[in-house]
Amino acid sequence: MTDLTSLGQAAKAASHQLALLTTAQKNEALLTIAATLEARAATILAENALDIADGRTQGLSDALLDRLLLTEQRLAALAADARRIATLPDPVGSDIESRVLPNGMRLARRRIPIGVLGVIYEARPNVTIDIATLCLKTGNAVILRGGRETLRSNLALVAAIQTALNQVGLPTASVQYIDNPDRALVTQLLKLDQYVDMIIPRGGAALHRLCKEESVIPVITGGIGICHIFVDESADLERAVDIVENSKVQRPSVCNALDTLLVHPAVAEQFLPMVATRLAQSGVELRATSEAFDLLQQHADAHNARVIPATATDFDQEWLSLILGVHLVANVSEAIAFIQAHTTEHTESILTNNWARAAKFVNALSSAAVFVNASTRFNDGGQFGLGAEVAVSTQKLHARGPMGLEELTTYKWIGYGDGHVRD
Amino acid sequence: MTDLTSLGQAAKAASHQLALLTTAQKNEALLTIAATLEARAATILAENALDIADGRTQGLSDALLDRLLLTEQRLAALAADARRIATLPDPVGSDIESRVLPNGMRLARRRIPIGVLGVIYEARPNVTIDIATLCLKTGNAVILRGGRETLRSNLALVAAIQTALNQVGLPTASVQYIDNPDRALVTQLLKLDQYVDMIIPRGGAALHRLCKEESVIPVITGGIGICHIFVDESADLERAVDIVENSKVQRPSVCNALDTLLVHPAVAEQFLPMVATRLAQSGVELRATSEAFDLLQQHADAHNARVIPATATDFDQEWLSLILGVHLVANVSEAIAFIQAHTTEHTESILTNNWARAAKFVNALSSAAVFVNASTRFNDGGQFGLGAEVAVSTQKLHARGPMGLEELTTYKWIGYGDGHVRD
Repeated sequence: MTDLTSLGQAAKAASHQLALLTTAQKNEALLTIAATLEARAATILAENALDIADGRTQGLSDALLDRLLLTEQRLAALAADARRIATLPDPVGSDIESRVLPNGMRLARRRIPIGVLGVIYEARPNVTIDIATLCLKTGNAVILRGGRETLRSNLALVAAIQTALNQVGLPTASVQYIDNPDRALVTQLLKLDQYVDMIIPRGGAALHRLCKEESVIPVITGGIGICHIFVDESADLERAVDIVENSKVQRPSVCNALDTLLVHPAVAEQFLPMVATRLAQSGVELRATSEAFDLLQQHADAHNARVIPATATDFDQEWLSLILGVHLVANVSEAIAFIQAHTTEHTESILTNNWARAAKFVNALSSAAVFVNASTRFNDGGQFGLGAEVAVSTQKLHARGPMGLEELTTYKWIGYGDGHVRD
Repeated sequence: MTDLTSLGQAAKAASHQLALLTTAQKNEALLTIAATLEARAATILAENALDIADGRTQGLSDALLDRLLLTEQRLAALAADARRIATLPDPVGSDIESRVLPNGMRLARRRIPIGVLGVIYEARPNVTIDIATLCLKTGNAVILRGGRETLRSNLALVAAIQTALNQVGLPTASVQYIDNPDRALVTQLLKLDQYVDMIIPRGGAALHRLCKEESVIPVITGGIGICHIFVDESADLERAVDIVENSKVQRPSVCNALDTLLVHPAVAEQFLPMVATRLAQSGVELRATSEAFDLLQQHADAHNARVIPATATDFDQEWLSLILGVHLVANVSEAIAFIQAHTTEHTESILTNNWARAAKFVNALSSAAVFVNASTRFNDGGQFGLGAEVAVSTQKLHARGPMGLEELTTYKWIGYGDGHVRD
């Protein structure tokens, strides 16, 4: 039986050491991890091949098997990523603010590591390296729990990491892995608040729900995006077609892909056939409410799109596939109200040339990212220039939207006194 | 039966309105609340008198009754506080950062309200006004749940707030109160994640534990402080006595009061009688481990302090009273290790004139506030110049230490494009 308390204690002890490392020491560890991944490529790929063979026997889909697969090229990319993270600025240790209080005490607010993270993820083994290296860079210890489909791959990757840590004199407990596939261990991890400071789930809605419900540790929830675009009557319709296509089609399986298209009635008759024609080229199925459905039917000759009537629950669902909800709204206020009723607060966009309506949309919606005349696909740590993406948060506390290295830190207040006592 | 879903829906709808208010509108509401509290003083005090009478019948302690009591003066102070909050800067709407991405899109990160807060508190009715006014200032709706001992007082205060809100044309659902004393309602509130964005418990350890365990909504935990001072051999001992006295005695019932005194052996024989003498003047009881106990016994003639042997659990307890744990540690490293083993990460202080040891202590400890040569009592929103204190967080996410108005906000990313699609 895996003893999570021991893992927790070891992680906490390691976190105290990691918090005091210099940036150079952390970067050395990252470079050594990269080299060890390369040196052990054969072993890692062999373990991955066993996982893949098992997955095939168990009838996993080709798409899923591809996500589980490591290749020489993918492993090289992981090593390159570890080296790239070594080049990023270290957020730890900088003073967010520093001032002198009226009583003469100097007060600083300093960025520090969070401590110990618990990360629960599914499928892709690259998350193991991603998260471990981002945690190391920010001086956090981490307890990992990946999907059972890639247990052998993950253990081989963690062994490589721990060998590298050992080589540079850092505690191997900086990166630990829960190797017991029993699901009860996940629940136990979520109760380990004595040692773990933050939980990050990386996976589907069910995993996020489990973490919210079971965890006594603060959880970063997110990654579930029911994303909207509102095409206003003043929109540049040619560009709107490009933006809708990019939002929906470029990578339909991710959280910032478009789910619902809202259209102003004044342009619906012109715009819907245009966008349907373009989306049909990628095989997008449209689920339209009555007015939009009727318009699309009337102009069926002008497009090849598959259009079916939308059901009541179609607008409360993240599609993650080539399906798009379509609905007409009378104006920007109705668009805002519709979005507020259905959104997961991930990403919304308004396509308009009207200044007041753009401002109204941006001000009224509190989603993690709100765009004007741009694709929803831009809500991403890489696109925002964060250098890394740990997760995309849609909750209101701590971090919102793409989380980079800074979002893996917290702060402490430091007061430098000279015999100061309080009146 | 109180219908929490209705409360939640109304709060969420109100939050959408509040998020769009100008600072002037919010300040007008705050000033009107202040005036209404004054105009209704007689009614509020009469309801409070009924609560106090009930409490006396139920045998509540005088100390607790004093915390429940509202007087004309205390009510005037609450009105004055509402007016003062109107004068504070409004954090909502400012861009935390704004830059142009390489693709030409302007990206801003804008401070916005969190949305709907659930605040669960005990005893003091002034929290009702404190929290309601801080939430209004930051554009958040709030659902309040106070202690049953002051139900009448709280309802009278909330009625005054809602009257004022109505008078200035704001939704009364901006500030709602759960008036059903059934404890099951607290648990229901903690599950209302569809409408509530953040839970703040204001009370003892049991309430914080309940919220951590039951809530599916992010919780700000804190307010529990096992606070330490380490007196290094290089400390100015006269000043050290002043600082220890101030930390322990000035207000022993609060979370930033001192709980454990760690002393370097080289100065223990000189310092312990000095500090015991001073603390005896305030009736502090010392619970000392063997070496410290022996030293204090040897010099019993030099001080009047009550000294008893410490038990194993004495150092894992927040005293909130005139008791102080005393323990000798060989050096700053031992002090750090002892603190890491026992702290709730609220407040620690080192008293030293040695630069390297001060730096080591400050760097190694990750408590919300770490001081050098200063009283633990400074870990406070007012002392830190935040203008207000919503709570003191000891968790690692979102906010750490005293929470002011900014900590009642989150942010959203805004991207201003011009037909931008992702490559």
